[in-house]
Amino acid sequence: MNQPLSTSATSAAQAQDHVDNARLQAAIAALAAFGGRPDGGVSRETLTEVDLASRRHLIEQARALGCEVMVDDCANLFFRRAGQRNDLPPVLTGSHGDTQPVGGKLDGAYGVLAGLEVIAALNDAGIETIRPIEVVAWTNEEGSRFGPGTMGSSAFVEPSRLAGYLDSVDKNKVRFGDALQTALASTPDVPRCAMQRPMSACVELHIEQGPVLERAGIPLGVVTGIQAVRWFSVTCHGMMAHAGTTPMDERRDAMAAAVPLAQKLYDFAAAEAASQLRLTLGRWQVAPNSVNTIPGRVEFTVDMRCVDDSVLDRFEAFLRAEVAAAGEAMEVSRFFQREPTHFPAPMLKLIEEAATRASAQAGLPAPMALTSGAFHDAMYVADHCPTAMIFVPSKNGISHNAAEATDPRDLFLGVQALAYTVTALANQEQ
Amino acid sequence: MNQPLSTSATSAAQAQDHVDNARLQAAIAALAAFGGRPDGGVSRETLTEVDLASRRHLIEQARALGCEVMVDDCANLFFRRAGQRNDLPPVLTGSHGDTQPVGGKLDGAYGVLAGLEVIAALNDAGIETIRPIEVVAWTNEEGSRFGPGTMGSSAFVEPSRLAGYLDSVDKNKVRFGDALQTALASTPDVPRCAMQRPMSACVELHIEQGPVLERAGIPLGVVTGIQAVRWFSVTCHGMMAHAGTTPMDERRDAMAAAVPLAQKLYDFAAAEAASQLRLTLGRWQVAPNSVNTIPGRVEFTVDMRCVDDSVLDRFEAFLRAEVAAAGEAMEVSRFFQREPTHFPAPMLKLIEEAATRASAQAGLPAPMALTSGAFHDAMYVADHCPTAMIFVPSKNGISHNAAEATDPRDLFLGVQALAYTVTALANQEQ
Repeated sequence: MNQPLSTSATSAAQAQDHVDNARLQAAIAALAAFGGRPDGGVSRETLTEVDLASRRHLIEQARALGCEVMVDDCANLFFRRAGQRNDLPPVLTGSHGDTQPVGGKLDGAYGVLAGLEVIAALNDAGIETIRPIEVVAWTNEEGSRFGPGTMGSSAFVEPSRLAGYLDSVDKNKVRFGDALQTALASTPDVPRCAMQRPMSACVELHIEQGPVLERAGIPLGVVTGIQAVRWFSVTCHGMMAHAGTTPMDERRDAMAAAVPLAQKLYDFAAAEAASQLRLTLGRWQVAPNSVNTIPGRVEFTVDMRCVDDSVLDRFEAFLRAEVAAAGEAMEVSRFFQREPTHFPAPMLKLIEEAATRASAQAGLPAPMALTSGAFHDAMYVADHCPTAMIFVPSKNGISHNAAEATDPRDLFLGVQALAYTVTALANQEQ
Repeated sequence: MNQPLSTSATSAAQAQDHVDNARLQAAIAALAAFGGRPDGGVSRETLTEVDLASRRHLIEQARALGCEVMVDDCANLFFRRAGQRNDLPPVLTGSHGDTQPVGGKLDGAYGVLAGLEVIAALNDAGIETIRPIEVVAWTNEEGSRFGPGTMGSSAFVEPSRLAGYLDSVDKNKVRFGDALQTALASTPDVPRCAMQRPMSACVELHIEQGPVLERAGIPLGVVTGIQAVRWFSVTCHGMMAHAGTTPMDERRDAMAAAVPLAQKLYDFAAAEAASQLRLTLGRWQVAPNSVNTIPGRVEFTVDMRCVDDSVLDRFEAFLRAEVAAAGEAMEVSRFFQREPTHFPAPMLKLIEEAATRASAQAGLPAPMALTSGAFHDAMYVADHCPTAMIFVPSKNGISHNAAEATDPRDLFLGVQALAYTVTALANQEQ
């Protein structure tokens, strides 16, 4: 070490002040061109051709910033800026590059591009951090093409999960394992790196995807944790029969059974309004789905979330009791569950410091604490190293929609807060 | 006329007694091979390649029986057995050859093959009728590939309707008009005949597709008419949003609006049990139909039927009031309506006579009168000439299903009743 270190706070502030808003907005627009839609949205499902092209674009951008590029066995891309002590575990930031079938420019993409902007700011400021910094673009966060979501981050944290993902197929019967091999083969110039590598800390910057920050008029959120989530599939079995000829008292109409159950679930959620239980019956599959045939089978999904896991325990018990009361005519299975995630206090304190400085410089209100209702890659990474998240507002709370948008001013402030946080973490030797 | 005429009743009885059950069952099995499925069902949607192949098969069968074959502009196939007075309008029988995406061997096919068996029986009995007899195979009764159903018979009766059907497209965006031209081009050896040709009478033999005859233990039904039917499409408009991040009180969840409306409709139907109102909410389309996205749009169909049209008036008023109360969040449109059909008494009397004789010869209970809950081509033909229908039982009341079945004994009795009725009608000079 033949040059004097700036203090951690000083270099963090310098990094923050070197974030370039014009460069950030241009980077967002450039990535949005991969899968861009006439309605302003983006269609870039994981490992599609357009996603592979966007990965190539990110690799070029990162190399232009002097980063070393690596890829792991789940095609997670890592862009590494060296530190003074490259033997120390790096600080990780980033998010995911894939979108829902119809998504926006920001969900995921913002966090990846923010990480690259932090590196650009550090370069401009001439700052050398103690630890390396890595920007990650996780594979298949959305889970819309291949289920489940957050494959990349969950497999990175626990590599044995990857084998269980390989046989997931998309609607065209393409296996995830085959799509993954195609993706890995498309970057022969990128060296492979290990899964589950040690990381010193991780910060993910993301749009809120909800209305809380906007409603409060606050540009930055310190995310304290992620709601508990449970997903169920409920199947109602009936008997297909002709709508005209079958008397009502001889029917076994699967939809006529599903509707009262759905109503009871909505009623339960309404009664739990105080506990902020969130209920979505989002996917319905009716067979044979014909105007004049009595539904023989109805399957619908139940997405229940709450910051308080005990509320979900009660809701699940209620659902199971209702289904059991129907005997063989109904089945329920839980196909996903995640307990609440609580981010560690020192990480929250640092983010609050970073976000407060950025907001104050812009003459805007101080950050607020909030929980995340959505899954994020950070949910899994939190099992691996100290992790936290920063949120910026979503206009009208909308995401997973072409209308997804955030004020450019808030996008800028979010990257400023990220730059401060990442730089400070990268200068912590312990 | 150089041979003495048998009396109408005598030749009708002779025709009835020459129906050959083994030949009938073989003909059903042979036609079921076109689109036959491993589960015993039949997939032969209208104007598909397999349907065109089955039409070629029917043409060959009819020619082997000495019939003249004709086709009209809607690809309805007519197999004509000459009479003594070929200037008189013929007696029409038959049904349709197409099936639902997954149907059985009998729905439609049975009526067509029964007509050909009546011609074979008349040939065997050496009976020459006064009027010609025509067996028809109507195009697209089911309406599953191209909407609406009963295209062939409705266009025959009112040819101006055909133009309105041509732009109907299937799920692969094939136009009905193009499929029709392909079908007509595939039978260059079959002369074209006029739509809306005069017919003296029409009898359609069909499976009941409901449980009434089986429950009563009666093999033959005299169909007095067809229930009134109305079809509606209800659309609930919400706002797609993230299931995890959107608080319950900020949601516009289209499914959370659709479910209570559906429940009210089921409740209305339950309260009308005495009037035999039948309600089916059969087709549901949810957008985006994703586990973790709040439904932005839900569209479902309402199929309401009753023998009493005034009950449907009240139900429609109730539905429209509920939708109106939701303001812009809901819309309803009626896309099909049919008033009840009442078949003429002289036709019913003749069918009763025919069915009574066939049942009595088999030592089985006398026929019963019932109404049809399903649409049939006869519903439209009734606007054109005196029309009626004969039903045979459906096992467990099941149709539009691979498990559709009827006791071969009952299939035989049905054709016997049809042979008697058609022969008697064909010997009526007035």
